[in-house]
Amino acid sequence: MLGRNKTGGEATGKTAGPPEMTSKTAPSRRSLLVAAGAGGLGIAAGAVGQAKLSGAQATEVPAGDIVEFHGTHQSGIATPAQDRMHIAAFDVTAESREELVALLSDWTAAIEHLMRGSDVGEFGATGGSYDAPPEDTGEALGLSASHLSVTVGFGRSLFEGADGPRFGLDGKIPEALIALPHFPGDALEEARSGGDLVVQACADDPQVAVHAVRNLARIAFGRARVRWSQIGFGRTSSTSTAQATPRNLFGFKDGTANLKAEEQKALDEHVWVSGAAGSEAWMNGGTYLVARRIRMHIETWDRTSLREQENIFGRTKREGAPLSGGTEFTEPDFAMAGRGGPIMPADSHVALAHPSANNGTQMLRRGFNYTDGSDGLGRLDAGLFFIAFVVDPRTHYVPMQNAMAKNDALVEYLKHTGSGLFAVPPGVQEGQYLGQGLFD
Amino acid sequence: MLGRNKTGGEATGKTAGPPEMTSKTAPSRRSLLVAAGAGGLGIAAGAVGQAKLSGAQATEVPAGDIVEFHGTHQSGIATPAQDRMHIAAFDVTAESREELVALLSDWTAAIEHLMRGSDVGEFGATGGSYDAPPEDTGEALGLSASHLSVTVGFGRSLFEGADGPRFGLDGKIPEALIALPHFPGDALEEARSGGDLVVQACADDPQVAVHAVRNLARIAFGRARVRWSQIGFGRTSSTSTAQATPRNLFGFKDGTANLKAEEQKALDEHVWVSGAAGSEAWMNGGTYLVARRIRMHIETWDRTSLREQENIFGRTKREGAPLSGGTEFTEPDFAMAGRGGPIMPADSHVALAHPSANNGTQMLRRGFNYTDGSDGLGRLDAGLFFIAFVVDPRTHYVPMQNAMAKNDALVEYLKHTGSGLFAVPPGVQEGQYLGQGLFD
Repeated sequence: MLGRNKTGGEATGKTAGPPEMTSKTAPSRRSLLVAAGAGGLGIAAGAVGQAKLSGAQATEVPAGDIVEFHGTHQSGIATPAQDRMHIAAFDVTAESREELVALLSDWTAAIEHLMRGSDVGEFGATGGSYDAPPEDTGEALGLSASHLSVTVGFGRSLFEGADGPRFGLDGKIPEALIALPHFPGDALEEARSGGDLVVQACADDPQVAVHAVRNLARIAFGRARVRWSQIGFGRTSSTSTAQATPRNLFGFKDGTANLKAEEQKALDEHVWVSGAAGSEAWMNGGTYLVARRIRMHIETWDRTSLREQENIFGRTKREGAPLSGGTEFTEPDFAMAGRGGPIMPADSHVALAHPSANNGTQMLRRGFNYTDGSDGLGRLDAGLFFIAFVVDPRTHYVPMQNAMAKNDALVEYLKHTGSGLFAVPPGVQEGQYLGQGLFD
Repeated sequence: MLGRNKTGGEATGKTAGPPEMTSKTAPSRRSLLVAAGAGGLGIAAGAVGQAKLSGAQATEVPAGDIVEFHGTHQSGIATPAQDRMHIAAFDVTAESREELVALLSDWTAAIEHLMRGSDVGEFGATGGSYDAPPEDTGEALGLSASHLSVTVGFGRSLFEGADGPRFGLDGKIPEALIALPHFPGDALEEARSGGDLVVQACADDPQVAVHAVRNLARIAFGRARVRWSQIGFGRTSSTSTAQATPRNLFGFKDGTANLKAEEQKALDEHVWVSGAAGSEAWMNGGTYLVARRIRMHIETWDRTSLREQENIFGRTKREGAPLSGGTEFTEPDFAMAGRGGPIMPADSHVALAHPSANNGTQMLRRGFNYTDGSDGLGRLDAGLFFIAFVVDPRTHYVPMQNAMAKNDALVEYLKHTGSGLFAVPPGVQEGQYLGQGLFD
């Protein structure tokens, strides 16, 4: 196909066969579509370690917006939060351990391609047999890597189903991979909760994130199927000190006190699993992903006074400063007295989320605003798709969520409609597949 | 609020009152949040005609990504298509003509603010009374105008309901504002179809588009409520010769032959209403918006061969060239013969959509890819939110959609689940409100 299009007049597609590709690695999507010769690409391609690419192809890889796939940890966690997300949970329909391993191997190869801005498969979207379905669905042709990150996790139901152990994995369930308790006020929908596998794709361009999830779903055909999925249109958390703090749909800055990628020590303490032994050793370098679809009653919120809104958050709306004073990054002073009580209300969101109220624990939050049409009652179905990465949800999520669900003044404006907890295995080295340690 | 935050230590919000604003016009969102002094802003503000702003404020308006609100036509039609969209249809619950006019007046004022990157209302998100709900919901604070355009239209049900005429408008229904016929294969959902009013907000940043729709919905409270809404994550059509052609979720370039903003003569012929007299004179300078939510069976599509896919579209997948040869913008040669028939299949999408098959009519398409989770059967709910602007749907949409629904090889991969047709009144001059001609 490639040769044909380039030579224009030969585009008599009905009779022509495809030319052979000269490499087993599909070239990057954009390199085939834009004029060659932009400066510095060869260097950049080297910088992201595309050792597998031939010399001719290495000069074609678009540079500058590729997130590295291989590493100690998976991407999409400490990666500076991209602006758009598509996340999907899957039910595994394969019945054998071999099929599950094959799926994870296929996903690994595909993610490696996707993250460097290539089509999935050997021949990609248009380079394969003309009489076969293309290997890649093609809607990202011409788009760059767009900082795509893909994060894969395992739900508890992958290890153990209603009918007992699955895939011989029951002995390897990490203790932290609990069934999340019912929290006060939960209104969880089964069809938006749980899942055996999760795939979180984040990118600067939503089409790139949707393309990734779709192609991974397609690769899973016959082995796993989408259980739920969610598109998030705007990040609500910064995960790098270089990023400005974005706003949630209550209009407040969200994630001011979030863990940042630069805080290596705090990440080691609060996010990355280490020192696990025996049946849990496969999780070292991994983390846990907590997903909560939180519908916001924005119409109700919009009718509350600015005073009430600021007291509920404990921060000013414009600047995001704690009500005790200063600017956005000033530490709140919970002891400062105002008329009739502390300036920082004890039931304010910032008070309840603060490490001082949570045994010093912190989370790496990486949530996204969403809107999913309307609800039939004239209200927008909109809110926060909360995602957090924690070293152990038993210490780093459950206690805080319990406290918040009981005491947070914000709760009356929220409804949790979806929930998931996933064990995110460590990053992948060359030649490995995602989660390999679980199966070795 | 502004003064308090700027002076830091005074942030004892529980007792402080708001300072007075010095103008009736809420300043732009970003101007209050970024450092002043960027070069050339004063000139740019002048260039976009913000004559109402005082000199002091004019220098604060962020430049470069503002779409002009006032003009012969509404924005969001011939405006170069932005990448993101949020569209909502409303049912009017107000019962008097005066209330309806007041709503349209309020929307006009708000849209004027929104499009220049300002909060809605006199005092905006944080400048009003501390004991009242803020006038603006605030989630776009700090974001620029992002090329926001807002387009408002009227459904037939605004003029005439099941119980008869409404708002005294029954004599002013344009003949072209028909009830769309049932097309073969339609699977329309009532809750995704129709509506008395429509608001299409497009922007580079989806948070800006969502913010616009939400605030307009809020302003409508008690007078109109959201009937359906849809977020579109990526444009599928170019409306300017400066834009590259994007891809739909079938992986094909879409809108190659679309009308472009630069083609003034074609727009005058195929998009803008002119020469209407009498009861329809209010539509001069307006157009009709056709909205169709088209679910794509992407899983089925993904299992068809590249040959089949290209024959269905009549174009090559990578380049988007017609199968009769050339490059993307080469005219298709429907007469060129191949083995056993024309190279361009008669039932191909490009053959059926081509002006030569439609009495020379053209549409200004402005659709968006969407994905709305999954459908409970393991499939992504994804597709195209089709939007087209036409001078008359009776000549420029219905015949083509009938032909396509019967003959288009693409049809078996599509399901139309939502539908709407709206009369889009002309643009607004200073001091007018949207649709004023209809009520004068």
